[in-house]
Amino acid sequence: MPTVYVTAPESVAAELAETLVDERLAACVNAVGCQSTYRWEGEVITDDETILLIKTTDEGYDRLAERIEELHPYDVPCLERFDEAEMADSFGAWIAESID
Amino acid sequence: MPTVYVTAPESVAAELAETLVDERLAACVNAVGCQSTYRWEGEVITDDETILLIKTTDEGYDRLAERIEELHPYDVPCLERFDEAEMADSFGAWIAESID
Amino acid sequence: MPTVYVTAPESVAAELAETLVDERLAACVNAVGCQSTYRWEGEVITDDETILLIKTTDEGYDRLAERIEELHPYDVPCLERFDEAEMADSFGAWIAESID
Repeated sequence: MPTVYVTAPESVAAELAETLVDERLAACVNAVGCQSTYRWEGEVITDDETILLIKTTDEGYDRLAERIEELHPYDVPCLERFDEAEMADSFGAWIAESID
Repeated sequence: MPTVYVTAPESVAAELAETLVDERLAACVNAVGCQSTYRWEGEVITDDETILLIKTTDEGYDRLAERIEELHPYDVPCLERFDEAEMADSFGAWIAESID
Repeated sequence: MPTVYVTAPESVAAELAETLVDERLAACVNAVGCQSTYRWEGEVITDDETILLIKTTDEGYDRLAERIEELHPYDVPCLERFDEAEMADSFGAWIAESID
């Protein structure tokens, strides 16, 4: 099942996480503070952001990704899917129950 | 080689990490504070947790996963295995030496 | 495309991230504080470190990994590559543009 890696401004991360769980697109979201370093208009800059690690099902991935792109304030959000190689069966079952 | 992604309450995360390294089931554990958002008894809630990113060998994975399920306070812990696509050889050798 | 997982001492992590972006080996770096538990000279110890999650292209990976090994203060740094299963097309295009 996918873990979706998204970065967002700190100011919107909590609300984004709550919306995705509330709409049953995500079973849970782990939000981690980070400093992001990248190039912007020719300069290397560093900003505070939040990494959201979002748990969903294989079937739920496309709807989740679409909804994140709708809600996200960036034109080009970091949105990547990583698939586990193995997981606790009970955790997989809980994710599946949590997604519509 | 696997990186095992586990979330745990902050109060037990450090001891869990130490036990896994002490018992030579893990070569190292990176513990990261997070806010976890999920649905509980119909409500969307957010709690502080710790993400443990646990490094072991392919051979060591099953024993590690079993031991985490024994030690973990949750009935349904988040426990997922992610396999790298490539790694520094010297780091792989160090992990292999660290696991019984 | 790869996300490269590297741990580094807090004191050098920011400069390492900036150098990799400045040299166009990385499109962006997310730096996350962590506590690392491992065995050192027979004792289980815990240290503060920084996890760097470094975004590059498939083609850029080898040069990035080589440069990290040059710059990193450890003899045996944690350096692992994780490949996404899927990503937003626009984010992939932005990474590709950002790498030399």
